[in-house]
Amino acid sequence: MKRENEEKTVSPAVVARLSRYYRFLRDLKERGVERVSSAELARLMDLTASQIRQDFNCFGGFGQQGYGYNVEHLFGELRKLLGAEEGYSAVIIGAGNLGSALAHAQTFVRRGVAVSAVFDVSRRVVGSAMGSLTVRHMDTLADYYREHPFQIAVLCVPKDAAQFCADTVAELGVPAIWNFTGIEVRVPPRCIVENVHLGDSLLTLSYKLRQRESR
Amino acid sequence: MKRENEEKTVSPAVVARLSRYYRFLRDLKERGVERVSSAELARLMDLTASQIRQDFNCFGGFGQQGYGYNVEHLFGELRKLLGAEEGYSAVIIGAGNLGSALAHAQTFVRRGVAVSAVFDVSRRVVGSAMGSLTVRHMDTLADYYREHPFQIAVLCVPKDAAQFCADTVAELGVPAIWNFTGIEVRVPPRCIVENVHLGDSLLTLSYKLRQRESR
Repeated sequence: MKRENEEKTVSPAVVARLSRYYRFLRDLKERGVERVSSAELARLMDLTASQIRQDFNCFGGFGQQGYGYNVEHLFGELRKLLGAEEGYSAVIIGAGNLGSALAHAQTFVRRGVAVSAVFDVSRRVVGSAMGSLTVRHMDTLADYYREHPFQIAVLCVPKDAAQFCADTVAELGVPAIWNFTGIEVRVPPRCIVENVHLGDSLLTLSYKLRQRESR
Repeated sequence: MKRENEEKTVSPAVVARLSRYYRFLRDLKERGVERVSSAELARLMDLTASQIRQDFNCFGGFGQQGYGYNVEHLFGELRKLLGAEEGYSAVIIGAGNLGSALAHAQTFVRRGVAVSAVFDVSRRVVGSAMGSLTVRHMDTLADYYREHPFQIAVLCVPKDAAQFCADTVAELGVPAIWNFTGIEVRVPPRCIVENVHLGDSLLTLSYKLRQRESR
């Protein structure tokens, strides 16, 4: 019931689990399921029902346990909590293969984030179409930001351009970076950085393979 | 010094940190740095020196603390430990934007994994070139696997094909799946799955943005 300070002490692990709940709840909603018990959800997600109740209690409960959770309501609460209703907008910096893949992906729109522009420095791609957007030159980023402030800069540039781009973006006052460069960029504390280190994930897989083989 | 059973009880968090050490050590090595102390490494990586020593002690130490770590030796040990010297091979299933981005990325080769083939079902892309590879039809996957057994299937297919592809791959006996589909595929325990849920990462970022704004 303490809605004011409920969100202050949430661990990264719980936030990661909330994003996962979001996915499963969305699937249930799309399949027309109206109610789900913590036991059913636990079975679907390979968690325990008590783990689920504990997670949701961090945020005020989200429903009547005896009757199960109302899927639509719970999904709506998660949307709110996770910022998917804020209407955040993002720009993609770096129109190479990965930037292009992200520009075409449903990842953003399914989480309430609109991709409003794509930037690059290469004359080869500037001016070309990427989905419904036209690739703009990096030199125009500052002007663009002043006219269309965005919240998230998605960094898809080569490693050697990573820190320079992060500096540029942080200096403009962009509040958050979603970083795919594989470089841990340094930015002022006012700028939030979320890293996607694909290589780390691949190494985790090869570590597990090797462990399995050496048994 | 107990090299035999040293790797049995390593937590996922430590494995994730080892992949991160791998990145930093590789950078140091490429910059020609020969020795690094745990204090220097700690500063670079925003960890504590004692955390680093503790992590490395899980694996037998990796060096003389008083003299710092030999970068090349430490990197070599991490390569071995993380399976990057095993010469694993991977195929990419799904030649859309993301599959194509991965086929062109340095992510694999920098971790000792060779991408040997790309598969798709669409007549539009089968037969076309993707980097140095030619896209093959999924119908030929089983034959390919028998002739060129690979260890990692990289799933880049649409959500509604995710479980079917996972089933196909698991049935062939492929030991590991690197899963980009956003669907948590179900496979037998003998098959290792490592998920990359980009959407979860984006939601974590929007959650942090919202928290920041509501302060």
